[in-house]
Amino acid sequence: MFTQPITVRYFEVDGQGVVFNAWYLAYFDEAMTAYLTARGLPYPKLQAAGYEVQVVRTEIDWRSGLRWQDAAEVAVATARIGRTSFAIDFEVRRDGHEVTCSARTVYVVTGADGSGKREIPPIVRDALGEPAPLRA
Amino acid sequence: MFTQPITVRYFEVDGQGVVFNAWYLAYFDEAMTAYLTARGLPYPKLQAAGYEVQVVRTEIDWRSGLRWQDAAEVAVATARIGRTSFAIDFEVRRDGHEVTCSARTVYVVTGADGSGKREIPPIVRDALGEPAPLRA
Amino acid sequence: MFTQPITVRYFEVDGQGVVFNAWYLAYFDEAMTAYLTARGLPYPKLQAAGYEVQVVRTEIDWRSGLRWQDAAEVAVATARIGRTSFAIDFEVRRDGHEVTCSARTVYVVTGADGSGKREIPPIVRDALGEPAPLRA
Amino acid sequence: MFTQPITVRYFEVDGQGVVFNAWYLAYFDEAMTAYLTARGLPYPKLQAAGYEVQVVRTEIDWRSGLRWQDAAEVAVATARIGRTSFAIDFEVRRDGHEVTCSARTVYVVTGADGSGKREIPPIVRDALGEPAPLRA
Repeated sequence: MFTQPITVRYFEVDGQGVVFNAWYLAYFDEAMTAYLTARGLPYPKLQAAGYEVQVVRTEIDWRSGLRWQDAAEVAVATARIGRTSFAIDFEVRRDGHEVTCSARTVYVVTGADGSGKREIPPIVRDALGEPAPLRA
Repeated sequence: MFTQPITVRYFEVDGQGVVFNAWYLAYFDEAMTAYLTARGLPYPKLQAAGYEVQVVRTEIDWRSGLRWQDAAEVAVATARIGRTSFAIDFEVRRDGHEVTCSARTVYVVTGADGSGKREIPPIVRDALGEPAPLRA
Repeated sequence: MFTQPITVRYFEVDGQGVVFNAWYLAYFDEAMTAYLTARGLPYPKLQAAGYEVQVVRTEIDWRSGLRWQDAAEVAVATARIGRTSFAIDFEVRRDGHEVTCSARTVYVVTGADGSGKREIPPIVRDALGEPAPLRA
Repeated sequence: MFTQPITVRYFEVDGQGVVFNAWYLAYFDEAMTAYLTARGLPYPKLQAAGYEVQVVRTEIDWRSGLRWQDAAEVAVATARIGRTSFAIDFEVRRDGHEVTCSARTVYVVTGADGSGKREIPPIVRDALGEPAPLRA
């Protein structure tokens, strides 16, 4: 299971005392990049191969809010691989076990030259591996 | 139909040349506040009545990316009202008609004193009005 | 005197109840763009002429913090024009008069082709007009 | 010399291909917190003692822009200690040596109860140590 530590920045906490919802998408973006890198596909390598990855859909469920100086991490897993899109699951875990937030994001692969959607190429497929969703 | 103009800030555009996904949640938060205010419920009035509103779920679909200096707006509508939660729909419209992004966010009403979930009070119900979803 | 309204976004307010300092640079960036546009030089026109503008220095003094739903604006003025750099002054004014923050930012003009610093071209000089600093 | 690694987030890079200026204040805020923590004064301890720290002034000079995936760190040092204010110097260093950005921020100590400015208390003075400025 791939996990990426989260450092809550002071300014990410809003007037309700918890991390403002938009920052989760920033966490997931960073965790996704780290996930692909850990699996042999740093983003520059993807670009060098002529591809980009774009987010086309996300759904996020929050159970509880993160606070400043909480110890937390994002777990990342491949959820689904289709012909031109794939899905990644994210779980925010506080103190290593409490799931405070769960999300699924769908990405498409596009040509880095702006030529639009592409079938998922082998280098992406290999990096994603066998799907093992975190969400039902 | 309530709409709120979006001004894309230069720094919201990322290396792919379009607004980074997280900023949409910032746009929706601002549009939601403006929507409730326009319907007679500015947030301070809600708080003075002893309530807060928290996001518990969001789903967002992107069809196209916003660019810097695009003319765009967020349309906001009440999608559903339940016992302790309600849903709001958002559509980002470029040039007044092209829907580039569509979203639904679910909120719960909580006590401002930290006492947890509450039934949706009349002042919130009245501000939300009759549901008229933008998403199917 | 050019002024640009500020809308404090809810999430820009941090745990101390006031706008986090970094967001002022976002306000100033947006106000600077609006200032040049109002003076006949929208940024795309600058780029089309083969130039970019880069921030090389800023100094900011805060007297008081902005809060959510404060009515505020940024006043913008040309402070100094040199050979390859120029300075812009910013004042954040609450309720139209109380100066809560004052800043000066120094910019250089560079070639849009990455060729480095350039003498300030006439189109920039004309847009900047006669210096009328807001800071001593 | 205290240093704190910087991870440039993808979305922090703007249309010019470098980290947008406002994010430096976010880096410095995080580095400052880590600095005080490393020197025995985590922020919650400061608050528990009845104090807060507020930024009243900053000046930042950029020589070069950080790019995504640059290896960089922030060096932090106490620059000056006065009666009610103190200054901290920051240097952003790429690849461990190239200084791309240098800054000085002035803070005041205030009562956590909103009672305004206070003389710098011993716990803060001890954490700050002997001034050793990074900027001339």
